[in-house]
Parts: sequence; C-alpha cells; structure tokens
Amino acid sequence: MPSDPTHVLLNRLRDIVGDAHLFTEGDLSAYEQDWRKRTRGKALAVVRPGNTQEVAAVVQACAEAHVSLVPQGGNTGLVVGSIPSDAGDQVVLSLLRMRAVRSTDADNLTLTVEAGCVLQHVQQVAEQAGFLFPLSLGAEGSCTIGGNLATNAGGTQVLRYGNARELCLGLEVVTAQGEIWHGLSGLRKDNTGYDLRNLMIGSEGTLGIITAATIKLFPMPAASLTAWVAVPSIAHAVKLLGLAFQHLGAGLTGFEMMGQFALSLVDKHYAQLRIPLWKETPYCVLIENADNESESHARERFEKLLELAMTDGCVTDAVIAENLSQARQLWHIRESITLAQAEEGLNIKHDISVPISAIPEFVETTDALLTREIPGVRLVNFGHLGDGNLHYNVQAPEHGDPKVFLREHETQVNRLVYQAVKKFGGSISAEHGVGSMKVNELTHYKDPVALTLMQHVKRALDPLGTLNPGRVVRDSA
Amino acid sequence: MPSDPTHVLLNRLRDIVGDAHLFTEGDLSAYEQDWRKRTRGKALAVVRPGNTQEVAAVVQACAEAHVSLVPQGGNTGLVVGSIPSDAGDQVVLSLLRMRAVRSTDADNLTLTVEAGCVLQHVQQVAEQAGFLFPLSLGAEGSCTIGGNLATNAGGTQVLRYGNARELCLGLEVVTAQGEIWHGLSGLRKDNTGYDLRNLMIGSEGTLGIITAATIKLFPMPAASLTAWVAVPSIAHAVKLLGLAFQHLGAGLTGFEMMGQFALSLVDKHYAQLRIPLWKETPYCVLIENADNESESHARERFEKLLELAMTDGCVTDAVIAENLSQARQLWHIRESITLAQAEEGLNIKHDISVPISAIPEFVETTDALLTREIPGVRLVNFGHLGDGNLHYNVQAPEHGDPKVFLREHETQVNRLVYQAVKKFGGSISAEHGVGSMKVNELTHYKDPVALTLMQHVKRALDPLGTLNPGRVVRDSA
Repeated sequence: MPSDPTHVLLNRLRDIVGDAHLFTEGDLSAYEQDWRKRTRGKALAVVRPGNTQEVAAVVQACAEAHVSLVPQGGNTGLVVGSIPSDAGDQVVLSLLRMRAVRSTDADNLTLTVEAGCVLQHVQQVAEQAGFLFPLSLGAEGSCTIGGNLATNAGGTQVLRYGNARELCLGLEVVTAQGEIWHGLSGLRKDNTGYDLRNLMIGSEGTLGIITAATIKLFPMPAASLTAWVAVPSIAHAVKLLGLAFQHLGAGLTGFEMMGQFALSLVDKHYAQLRIPLWKETPYCVLIENADNESESHARERFEKLLELAMTDGCVTDAVIAENLSQARQLWHIRESITLAQAEEGLNIKHDISVPISAIPEFVETTDALLTREIPGVRLVNFGHLGDGNLHYNVQAPEHGDPKVFLREHETQVNRLVYQAVKKFGGSISAEHGVGSMKVNELTHYKDPVALTLMQHVKRALDPLGTLNPGRVVRDSA
Repeated sequence: MPSDPTHVLLNRLRDIVGDAHLFTEGDLSAYEQDWRKRTRGKALAVVRPGNTQEVAAVVQACAEAHVSLVPQGGNTGLVVGSIPSDAGDQVVLSLLRMRAVRSTDADNLTLTVEAGCVLQHVQQVAEQAGFLFPLSLGAEGSCTIGGNLATNAGGTQVLRYGNARELCLGLEVVTAQGEIWHGLSGLRKDNTGYDLRNLMIGSEGTLGIITAATIKLFPMPAASLTAWVAVPSIAHAVKLLGLAFQHLGAGLTGFEMMGQFALSLVDKHYAQLRIPLWKETPYCVLIENADNESESHARERFEKLLELAMTDGCVTDAVIAENLSQARQLWHIRESITLAQAEEGLNIKHDISVPISAIPEFVETTDALLTREIPGVRLVNFGHLGDGNLHYNVQAPEHGDPKVFLREHETQVNRLVYQAVKKFGGSISAEHGVGSMKVNELTHYKDPVALTLMQHVKRALDPLGTLNPGRVVRDSA
C-alpha cells in the first residue's frame, strides 16, 4: 500500500537517515522500555539521525504527517518521559548517533558537544583538557548530555555548581516546525530577548529538540576531601550546613544527609561496606570540600569547621577520609542506599524539595503523619540537604506482602507526602522531572496560573502537539 | 463625558489605587523621561499600586480597556524600556510603592522582597542579617530589584555570582490577564515544568509584571582585596584571567579591563584620582579577590597569583591595595570612565559581549576597521573581561563638532561594531537589555528562528499586546 500515510512517512524517514538508521522491527526494547522497567511502550519506528539537518528533516516529515515524536537520549529518565506510548503511533527520535565534541575553548572555559554525547564522555573530554565538568549522577555511564539538559538533571554537585541548567551557556535546537535555532553561544552575558535557552532546558523535549550545547568548564580543584559526621538531629544538620557555607564558601561541593534507617538497610544488605558512626546517631552527613589550593589547606579548613561544629553541638563525632579510596568508600555508602532499598523490597519513592529551613519540621510532621495513618510503614530519608532535596522514600512494613502494601497504599502515601510538600512550599519533583508519570499530579500540586502559562507556551511553540505529547503539560485543557 | 472610555478607565484605576496614587497632571518627568535623558514620552496616567492585588486589578482594567501598560521601577534603564511612548496613550505602572521586605530566611539563605525595593536597600537588609546580596551596579541607589530582574541586570560581581537571573529563586508575577502567579519559591531544585521564572526574568515587563522575588543570599566574605595590574596586551589579560580562575577559584569576584585611552580620559578630567601604572602599558586590569578565610590568606593567594603571572609575562607591574580605602579608590577610577567620557563629549556606546577567547581578535580587528573607515575616531575600551562583556565605546574625533560626528556616523559605527560582534558569535546587548532602543537592531543581529520563537511566546502570554508593547520584540510580524 504505497499510499498508506504511515508507509509514506516511514519511506521519507528512511530517505532522510538511511536504511541502517530506521528501525521498525526486531527487539526495540532499549527504546521502548523505561529505565526502571515499570512501563513498556510500542514505537511506530525508531529513527536515529546523524546530524542536526537530519533531525530537522525528521521533525518536518513527522509534523507534516501529524505523527508524534518522542526524543530520546540515553533513556535513563525516572519519570517515563522518553519512551513511546503503547499505542504504536509515536516515532522515537534517538539522538545517540549525534555524539561529536564540536569544539573545546579553554580560554572561554567552554565545550560544545552534541546531544548524544554520554555524560561520562563529556566529563572525560573536559578532564583531558585540564578542566572539570561538574555534572555528575548515577546514570552518567549511559545518560546523554542532551537528556541531562532536556530534564535539567541534578546530581551530587548542585550545591556548588548548580543543576544542568546552570552549566549551559548555549543550545542548538530543532523547533517543532523543523527549523534550527542556532543558539550555541559561549556567552556569559546576553540580554537580547527572552531566555529561550532556559525555556528549552527542562522542557523534556516538549518544546524543541536539543541537538547540541555549549557547556561551562571549571578549573579542576587542587584537592577534594570528604568527611562523614554524626549529627543529633536534622535541625543540627541545617545548622552545620550554614557553618559549612560560611567557612568553606564555594569549596563546599557536597552535603548529603542520611537517616539511620536508610543506613541500617545498607548495613543489612551490604555489611562489607562498614558504615562509620551510624549506630549511635539518628542522622549522618557526608560533606565534601573541594579546595583550589592544596590538600593540606583543605584538611586544615575542614578540621577548623568540624571543631567549631562540635563546640556548637551540631556534630557529635566525625571521620575525615585519609585518602581518595576512603573518600570513595564513603560516597559508595551514600550511593548504595537506593540499591539497599531495592534489596529490602518494593518501596515508594519521592524526589521532593522544600526550603532548607523547613526540612526539620517537614520531616518531623510528615514522619508522624505517615506512621499514624499507615501503621508499620518504614521511612527511608536521605538526600541532597544542601539543595533542600530529599529522597523521602517509604518502604513497606517489615512483615506482609510489599506488593499488596503498594497496591493498597501507594496513592494514599503519595497524596500525604505531596500535600505536606505543598504545605511547606516545596516541589513534588526536585530533580527527576515530570515525564508522563507526574503530569496529572502537577494539576493538584502546582500553582494553577503557572500551569496555564505552561499550556500557553506549549501551544505557542508546538501548536500541532507532535513533540513528546502528554509529557510535562497535559494536552489542551 | 462620563462615557469617554479613557475617563472610565482612569476612574476605575483611581478606585483601585486611591486618589493619591493616580497621577494624570503636573510634572511627570520622573516617569516620562529616560535615565540618560535622550527620550521623553507622554503618559496617559501614572498609577502606583500599593500591593499585588492592586497591580492585578490595574492590569485587568487596562486589558479590558485595551490600553497599554509600561511597568516601571527606578526608571534607570539604559535602553528606553520603561518610559511611555510619546503618543500619550500608555499608562505607566510604577512599582515604587511596593517596597516591603516580606521575609528573611537565614537557614535557607533567601530574602523575599517586593519589586519596588531599591537595590541598595536590599543589599543593606542582607548585610544586617549577616549576609551578602552580591548584585551591585552604578544605579544601585535608585534602581529597584524588580527592574533588575525584569532586565536581568549585570554589574560588577557577575563573574562570581552571575547576573540578576542567577540570584533569583522565585517570583510573584501578575500576568497580562491580571492573574497572579504565586511562584515565590525558595527552592534550589524544582523540575515541575517549564522555566517560567527565567522566562519572566529579562523579559522587560513584556510578558508579565514582577511584583516580588525570592532572592539568594551568600555568606559574607571574610576579606576582600583589590589589585591593579599592568598587562602588555588583551591576549595577556585573557591568559591572566585563566590563571586567576585556577588560583583564586570562586574567590575571583572581579576582573575589569581598561584600555589606555579610557584611562587617559579619567586622568585628563579627574587628575586627582592618580591612576597607577597606566602610562607605560596599553591595558590595566583590576582584580578583586574575596576570601572566606582571612585578609592575610587573601593577600598570600594574591601575591602567589601575581608572582606566577609575572613569571609568565602576562603581568608587567602590579599594585595591591593596602586597605579598603585604597581598594575603593581603584574601583572609583574604573567607575569614573563613563563620567570622564561624558566630560570629553558625546560618544557612541556599545554594551557587547563575545566569547572571552575571541576578545583579543575582536578588539584588534574592530579597532583597525573603525580607524580605517572613520579617521580620527577614538576608541574607549573597557569592561567586565571576566564575563566577555566590553563597553566598546566610540568617542568623536578630538577636533570638530561631536554632534555633527554623531549625526553623520552613529549609524555607520553601530553597524560596523555590531557586524563584528555577530561575526565573533557575540551579543549586541550584554547586560543593558533591548528596550525600545535596540528592538529593530535585533532583527539584523539575532538568530531569525530565535526571534520567531520570541514572537510566539509574546503572543501566547500577552495576546492583546498591552504589556510594554514595542519593547524587546517588535509588534506582530
């Protein structure tokens, strides 16, 4: 049936990218299944353009055929934003072939890379040029810089360097009409109109497709030290954070808080990790200090801070890593919490933020509420305290079937947690984004005027609604 | 004529804000004349609402009457963006009565202030709470934080702390429909949808009216030192900047370059300022180092940097201020360039940016081009080198009538400079914005796809076109 519109479109896409880069059959699970393996979609086709012109041509072809596109990088997102729906009528546009490093500008402290570059590769290119690209997160071996920017990824160094948004100076974007916006600026100041760069960043492919980016490089710190401290309460952790800001200044690159129950799960499932201090204290904090001077200077500053913090009573005990391998071990404990939770069984995850000052009361009241409303519930609380970002997770009760627990309580748990977040002026998605997973919840927890503005912007830039429809904003009201 | 629509609108505005806060006659020059006294408009009325609800009601009333609004803060902008047109049919909405500090949150390092707060007052409130609010610019005694955010103001500490945009966590905005977006978040991470905050910031009142903001506070540095150094060329200044980034890290808060001719004007008109080193070198650089440790540590770091820079040949001579008063004197020289230019006579100003790595070649080739095309022209070159932002100004030839020179050459000079900026991938407005002054020039020097996207956004958020029309984007294509 040569006049079948789908057939015509697929032929056109094949002409654009070449036979080898259009997939319509075989095992497409890498493109159709989400990272957490919770949802599986069905692609009409997977198209893998090799350059920006091809991306533009693909977008034009799909727009003309009124067929939706789902842009995809490493497909490591956590909110089901980069896989097709199960209707089989959406084309996955994979950016993985666009992985060139277009240029390095040492004097301007910038790097221009294509969207499909894997984050770890970008870090390595920066390092080879003698610089630091500070974006760092669990999926860095598979996620792409385009996806990081499309979702405004966070990670472990946000405290000092900001989210992905703050690390980007310029973008090249293919619009919903298949035009190319050449915005690869290496400028630190440009007040010639609306901030389209930041509008595209974090829009999860619903307003345009990021094909390349100019990103910021930073001088490599001379030394980086890690400490692990015991704090008597979250309020004390907040006080310690203030002291650390004051005494380490921009040297403070990490401030991660971990609750005792979270650490007990790591201890239970990975006993070999030997967690310091956790048994005698409700919370531990991991602090990282990157120094542009020397290791001895970093150590001296750290010791001074901890001395002050102990005098003030906000730290009861502390360990400073003696070397890089010890530091890695401490970070490894922090990063093992999610895995330990999985070993323990099914759980309900929340990636939330509230103002840092509100965290102690938020945790106290929400812990109390959940324990009262859902007896036996176990609270796994840890996260980037320095960013006000908690992974406030809920583990099923110790006895009984966790599947049944989730089926019966997930909606209720989410509602209780998100209502508390809203009450404290927080966000129900601090770093993971909206995707299709939280798009309905936004209508309950986000300012209604903001939602209306978002819909206006979506309709203005993608009037046909073919770019990643149903993600971030709901289809027209 | 009670049914005259203008009369009806004015009565309605009077009902909203009260008799004392609607001005229709008398001397309105403070609201109608731009800061540089280059343009004078004529307001239909000046309305000064006292709170956000009143702003919303004013916007609704004007939208219903199809009358345009020009939002105004301290009216210190440099691109004629905050005064009414001369047609007498636009209402000036002054935010000056909204100057409450709504809250200070020390643990969250934030301050929530109303749009009409004068910048200097905001700095003082931060200081009284023991913190630094780092936005600082010439007009800080009169400009308002709302205006700073609406124009994404720059200033002298952008290198370390970013533009106004980077200093803001949340906004309260009245939309073109007169609705209130309650976005006063104190969150450092929030990935629940499009970046409306940054869309509003820098939109110069054309997409919404900022009524309040939650802004970031920083720990006060323990000491701040200033050095004045001689460099043999701009390329050496760029190399010095790289060294300073590496050795001072986030301590580097200022890096200002000044050309010999710019300094000679200061020497000529303000001889009492006693400028160091300038006679023997083509360029001087002012470096500021803010240290979170101590003054002696700052001095030690500074001396080490300068030693290295001298060995490398990028600095030929240097002076470090012995105390705060000497440091202020050095900054005073830098800040006197604009005034000395005015004393010297009329000149053509450019607030441009290019990638830092391109600055040496940009200046060399553009200097050569202008001197060749327009004999006798004198080039005043200075600016925030660390941000790639130059105030590349053109002074009329020494002899002859500068008025005639400007009349005959201003358009040509602008074209030559802006074409050069475009060639080097730069911006024709680095920190001053677009206003009405540069709105037509944007059509020549900005990416056409970006301009189209801007128009789509404008029409989506302000379909009636009543918010500051004709500024930033041209009325519909």
